[in-house]
Amino acid sequence: MSNQPWLDAVQQDLQEVERLLERVTTVEYPPLTLLLQHTLLNKGKRLRPALVLLAASFHNYRREVLLPTAAAVELLHTATLVHDDLIDNARSRRGSPTLNTLTSERATVLVGDYLFAQSAILAVTCQNIRAIQSFSRALATICDGELREVLTAGVLTNTKEDYYLRIESKTAALFSTATETGGILSDAPESACQALQEYGHSLGMAFQIVDDVLDFVGDEREMGKPVGNDLRQGTLTLPAIQLMEMYPHDNTLADLFGDPADGEEKVRRVVEMVVNSPAVERCYAEARRFVSQAQAALQPLPDNQYRRAMMELAEYVVGRRQ
Amino acid sequence: MSNQPWLDAVQQDLQEVERLLERVTTVEYPPLTLLLQHTLLNKGKRLRPALVLLAASFHNYRREVLLPTAAAVELLHTATLVHDDLIDNARSRRGSPTLNTLTSERATVLVGDYLFAQSAILAVTCQNIRAIQSFSRALATICDGELREVLTAGVLTNTKEDYYLRIESKTAALFSTATETGGILSDAPESACQALQEYGHSLGMAFQIVDDVLDFVGDEREMGKPVGNDLRQGTLTLPAIQLMEMYPHDNTLADLFGDPADGEEKVRRVVEMVVNSPAVERCYAEARRFVSQAQAALQPLPDNQYRRAMMELAEYVVGRRQ
Repeated sequence: MSNQPWLDAVQQDLQEVERLLERVTTVEYPPLTLLLQHTLLNKGKRLRPALVLLAASFHNYRREVLLPTAAAVELLHTATLVHDDLIDNARSRRGSPTLNTLTSERATVLVGDYLFAQSAILAVTCQNIRAIQSFSRALATICDGELREVLTAGVLTNTKEDYYLRIESKTAALFSTATETGGILSDAPESACQALQEYGHSLGMAFQIVDDVLDFVGDEREMGKPVGNDLRQGTLTLPAIQLMEMYPHDNTLADLFGDPADGEEKVRRVVEMVVNSPAVERCYAEARRFVSQAQAALQPLPDNQYRRAMMELAEYVVGRRQ
Repeated sequence: MSNQPWLDAVQQDLQEVERLLERVTTVEYPPLTLLLQHTLLNKGKRLRPALVLLAASFHNYRREVLLPTAAAVELLHTATLVHDDLIDNARSRRGSPTLNTLTSERATVLVGDYLFAQSAILAVTCQNIRAIQSFSRALATICDGELREVLTAGVLTNTKEDYYLRIESKTAALFSTATETGGILSDAPESACQALQEYGHSLGMAFQIVDDVLDFVGDEREMGKPVGNDLRQGTLTLPAIQLMEMYPHDNTLADLFGDPADGEEKVRRVVEMVVNSPAVERCYAEARRFVSQAQAALQPLPDNQYRRAMMELAEYVVGRRQ
């Protein structure tokens, strides 16, 4: 058993997905192969492909269709990360330098586009229009969420509702596409597809809240990136919104967003305030609420090792440290 | 009759395509609507959507499927232009400021991604797997071509063969997808689909050669962008390659690519050398060769107004000034 028991149920097929990803990253032009491999093969959790495979395990599991689809989901995710890191000027991810630190901005934009294209090619191989539609909608939703984030950066009036809309687009949409697609491609009945889609959505919401908390409280070494990143980008996430609600007047946040001078010192102070306030605990309570929703959504599915794995996966999402 | 008689055959449906594009650019968030409309609604020639519609006119013309597909092709093309202009740091296109001069780099990357996503959503509505596959392959091929261009920028050993490979990916792939998809979606027999695909490919090759010549000899006002752009990017196109072949030793190109000092003066000199040499005429001869290939490919199709329009369109492509 691995550290992540939910992985065991699909471990073998995840290795096949890995092989597909390796194939996509091996191209004719060696310098490009290096860039693609650095981007795609650096120890991601492969959570989204695992979700496709788990969700497909309840009914007619068709390996030959599921493996490329799972790889396509990971490629789509990676493409958005490549553009995100460029946009945020991020220096490291998962402990490795980001692509934009290794090559030109021009090549980074294009490598992201190339990964989108490869994702589309693999996604289409399932030959199922409904699954392909779910994919293309997820991409549109992700872009919409990212654009909202960028165009409202530095705005202090973002409410909790704005935040939930944003993370729904940014993260939950692809999680729910992963699980829904698993259902569709395994010929699951409509009720099961719906249940799987809801599970993915709630899991994605919980996942992103925890991600945003870790940006304040995480261990920089474990996470492989510095804390306070969202603040530096002017992005107001749930922990900061909680802080604003608790201290609507006297807080460093307004100061940080209003005046860039001494930015690093202000970021440090806001991080400290969040860490020492009940904001973190409140965020975890919200994340746990979504985890319970995710677990409840699984009810209509047969109680077998795959359902248990998905229950555990939901627990893992709030317990994780990176 | 318009100035471009080949347009008349599909003029009315192109207006419907325009309405679809307007709908895509009208989103909930007004600042984003402005950016999208600036990008998409600024007097493009709409050549690619016209190709989809023309190519579909020989057999079972299903308007409801063809209009979104034609719009999808234009969206895909526009998405690549948005990223291209950012990558090249271009200031104007078609006489208007580029998106990257109007908004942040972050928003520009994301608007491009958003257009890719909307293109995918429209492309999937045709519900035809073969057409969707052609689309996703075109996107991959375009990215591959762009990456080749970026990763070999400033390399003087680029041969004519390298150049043809590059423009095949960069331009001809989408032209041939446009015409092939028109064939597929109108239930054309296999031989006709093949003929249409070949026409699109050769037309795209001719189109790009002329584009690259216009980058040297074009009227800046008519083109809406400055000449010598490719040289500034370190991109060796056919006119420059012809120049290198004619003057392998004494030329300013090696100097320009080898030493960035006085770049603008060197660009001006190379442009002048090209304009005053037989390079331009040789390029047009190559373009005309592709135009003849395109026209010959149409042979198996019925001789009607649509075939005549496509014959004229091929002539237009070499005769155009912008």
